[in-house]
Amino acid sequence: MLNDLKKRVLEANLELVRQGLVIYTWGNVSGIDPNREYMVIKPSGVDYGSMTVSDMAVVDVRSGKVVEGDRRPSSDTPTHLELYRKYPNIGGVVHTHSVHAVAFAQAGLPIQALGTTHADYFCGDIPCTRALTREETQTEYEANTGKVIVETFNGLNADPMAIPGVVVKNHGPFSWGKDPEEAVYHAAVMEKVAEMNLKTLLLNPNASMETYLLEKHFKRKHGPEAYYGQKQ
Amino acid sequence: MLNDLKKRVLEANLELVRQGLVIYTWGNVSGIDPNREYMVIKPSGVDYGSMTVSDMAVVDVRSGKVVEGDRRPSSDTPTHLELYRKYPNIGGVVHTHSVHAVAFAQAGLPIQALGTTHADYFCGDIPCTRALTREETQTEYEANTGKVIVETFNGLNADPMAIPGVVVKNHGPFSWGKDPEEAVYHAAVMEKVAEMNLKTLLLNPNASMETYLLEKHFKRKHGPEAYYGQKQ
Amino acid sequence: MLNDLKKRVLEANLELVRQGLVIYTWGNVSGIDPNREYMVIKPSGVDYGSMTVSDMAVVDVRSGKVVEGDRRPSSDTPTHLELYRKYPNIGGVVHTHSVHAVAFAQAGLPIQALGTTHADYFCGDIPCTRALTREETQTEYEANTGKVIVETFNGLNADPMAIPGVVVKNHGPFSWGKDPEEAVYHAAVMEKVAEMNLKTLLLNPNASMETYLLEKHFKRKHGPEAYYGQKQ
Amino acid sequence: MLNDLKKRVLEANLELVRQGLVIYTWGNVSGIDPNREYMVIKPSGVDYGSMTVSDMAVVDVRSGKVVEGDRRPSSDTPTHLELYRKYPNIGGVVHTHSVHAVAFAQAGLPIQALGTTHADYFCGDIPCTRALTREETQTEYEANTGKVIVETFNGLNADPMAIPGVVVKNHGPFSWGKDPEEAVYHAAVMEKVAEMNLKTLLLNPNASMETYLLEKHFKRKHGPEAYYGQKQ
Repeated sequence: MLNDLKKRVLEANLELVRQGLVIYTWGNVSGIDPNREYMVIKPSGVDYGSMTVSDMAVVDVRSGKVVEGDRRPSSDTPTHLELYRKYPNIGGVVHTHSVHAVAFAQAGLPIQALGTTHADYFCGDIPCTRALTREETQTEYEANTGKVIVETFNGLNADPMAIPGVVVKNHGPFSWGKDPEEAVYHAAVMEKVAEMNLKTLLLNPNASMETYLLEKHFKRKHGPEAYYGQKQ
Repeated sequence: MLNDLKKRVLEANLELVRQGLVIYTWGNVSGIDPNREYMVIKPSGVDYGSMTVSDMAVVDVRSGKVVEGDRRPSSDTPTHLELYRKYPNIGGVVHTHSVHAVAFAQAGLPIQALGTTHADYFCGDIPCTRALTREETQTEYEANTGKVIVETFNGLNADPMAIPGVVVKNHGPFSWGKDPEEAVYHAAVMEKVAEMNLKTLLLNPNASMETYLLEKHFKRKHGPEAYYGQKQ
Repeated sequence: MLNDLKKRVLEANLELVRQGLVIYTWGNVSGIDPNREYMVIKPSGVDYGSMTVSDMAVVDVRSGKVVEGDRRPSSDTPTHLELYRKYPNIGGVVHTHSVHAVAFAQAGLPIQALGTTHADYFCGDIPCTRALTREETQTEYEANTGKVIVETFNGLNADPMAIPGVVVKNHGPFSWGKDPEEAVYHAAVMEKVAEMNLKTLLLNPNASMETYLLEKHFKRKHGPEAYYGQKQ
Repeated sequence: MLNDLKKRVLEANLELVRQGLVIYTWGNVSGIDPNREYMVIKPSGVDYGSMTVSDMAVVDVRSGKVVEGDRRPSSDTPTHLELYRKYPNIGGVVHTHSVHAVAFAQAGLPIQALGTTHADYFCGDIPCTRALTREETQTEYEANTGKVIVETFNGLNADPMAIPGVVVKNHGPFSWGKDPEEAVYHAAVMEKVAEMNLKTLLLNPNASMETYLLEKHFKRKHGPEAYYGQKQ
């Protein structure tokens, strides 16, 4: 079942390697089927070099049970599910340990909007979650990781489709998009923007950007007034 | 029309990728015909991997209208046009989001002349523009980006052929040259010099260079007393 | 003798180059036979490009003498031997001069546990040894390097299998694992984690992580409660 | 004439590119013949991609005149000559604009000996020259660059064969060795050591190493007591 989605999820996982976002098995991509019944996700701890379409795990979105595949799904599966359940417009989710985004996660700091590279894809600061409590860590850790992401966006009254990524404190980046390919694209942008921001802050710790420039760039590419790219 | 220029502009765009200056569609190169009537520029939001000569857009320099090509030109087209109209010796213009030059743009700082690598190509600090106002951002944003570049060089009484690049505040680098190839070359130099300067400033925030050394190196390569390279 | 182990040790040395951990001859990997009588190690100062299986040196673990091979073994041989003798669960040892781990060694600082990337492989800070004394340096330098590593772990009451790496002051990283392949894997993780930590500390010099998160991640991958990866 | 030396000098120039030390034409390597009458050097401003053996320029060491080749020699030729004339054990000289070594040159700081990677090749700090005066810059600039290097080593009473490199203030690194290949090797080590040192100083501005460790490592590889590498 879902053979096309499996191919796309496999390909999106391999794209993480090509973009330099992961080494070894340090990342995972998932996609959801159009009916939002099943999620396809990378198996846990399997090398990118040897992964095949049939290694992809199919998980029931409601129950969280594996319904196809011999492999254990990524240990981050409950985090992905949490996001799909709460955000009906998300079609793909990505988690990596890319260096610069992790640096912000470990520092406990948001990736501030400081320039138009950021604004072209993220309409505001990319938030950093609070730390999980001892209880949240010891029981249902991965589901609680998803819940703290949702809590963060709720607390900021932020739209996850306008800010398609987050850094989880002491952990690393999660990103999403309308499909697995866009989620990977956002993971790559986030890493590049995190690198730019670190280097900006080393030059000027008080750097900032005007909100009107942020909105101008985001709307140039997204929504009814967009004029970037080719007509569809 | 202008088939040779289209080939060169396409090739110059691909060189941005090879030099590590852009990922995805984050950059654009244009060139102008010898009569300065038409500009050839990369189409907007098209992947470097699939771009062909016939995708290049031809734009009337005076009117800013597309006169050939099915594709929308780069959304930065009005910025390029502004520079060609004001600076009659420019034959190519480049815009990228290369990481270190963007860091200076986001920090709102010029890339100071600190060494001979810089002096070989830029006879002075590479300036950073002021921020655009709300009005300049909301209306004719891209043309105003070109205008603030010209304003910056006028304000400093600087020669754009002796300092063939700038960082636009909260945005990123623009560079130019006598043709598209030289504009790309200057984009690569600017990124390398920005990286060197960031690292220099981390070691010594008060670093500086003597004007006589700056001028010696620039004149070794440019103008009537040049003795670098082979006789033409 | 030990032809299989020689092949694996050669391959593990070449993997150091592929992972970007060494240039020229700046690193070495060894492995021990199941009976812990013989160690196979890279020859000293031989280029990775031209090394063959027969260049691998076989050393008697008890006496430290070469028992096979025409080549001098790595000059770090006595350090490797010290670790094999003291730690009976180690099957492979690696030494590199990878840039970020060296920076911590030269700074005389441990690589603190600041996030889950670290916690997935190292259950605590990666320690930095004290400096060797003049006497320890001038006589039996390489054996003393091994001894100061053991002293460091004893002093911290730390388990070398839970923290499979160290930085030796003013020198660089050593890592180990159940076999040569795992030792190389840990060397790559250490370098990546060192880069993440340096960048974290530039953003927030007071960064830290909760012990319960550290332990959760380590135990997710190691020991009886592990649930990361595929069932063996 | 000197066809073998020309091949080696060409190959050494190409190695600069492979080691990531130069882009475009930003570097040059020379070598001297065993009688120390002629120096072979890269032509000025010629692309690495298209350079051939016959492009190499042959220069008379005493007079500084080109005695073979249609090409102008590197504009840094008088700097190379100055070093060959003063230091009779040097067989190859390299100049690059590698990023981290340039950062130290622009900061006006020596590359301090902070660890064994440095000590394996440089028995002490890699010095930074003083700035050239206006007069030294405007007349015989390149020869004066060589002279200020010699002045620096004289002032420190340092042996250029034990510290085979320098950074020239506001300019960049020069290195040398017994032949062109070793000079390139030292250029690569210097760049790597400069990167390690910058990152060390960001972690600990007071980092230092003991002289006895510095000397131990240098003597492990050089001179009569060396025991690193294979017997010759």
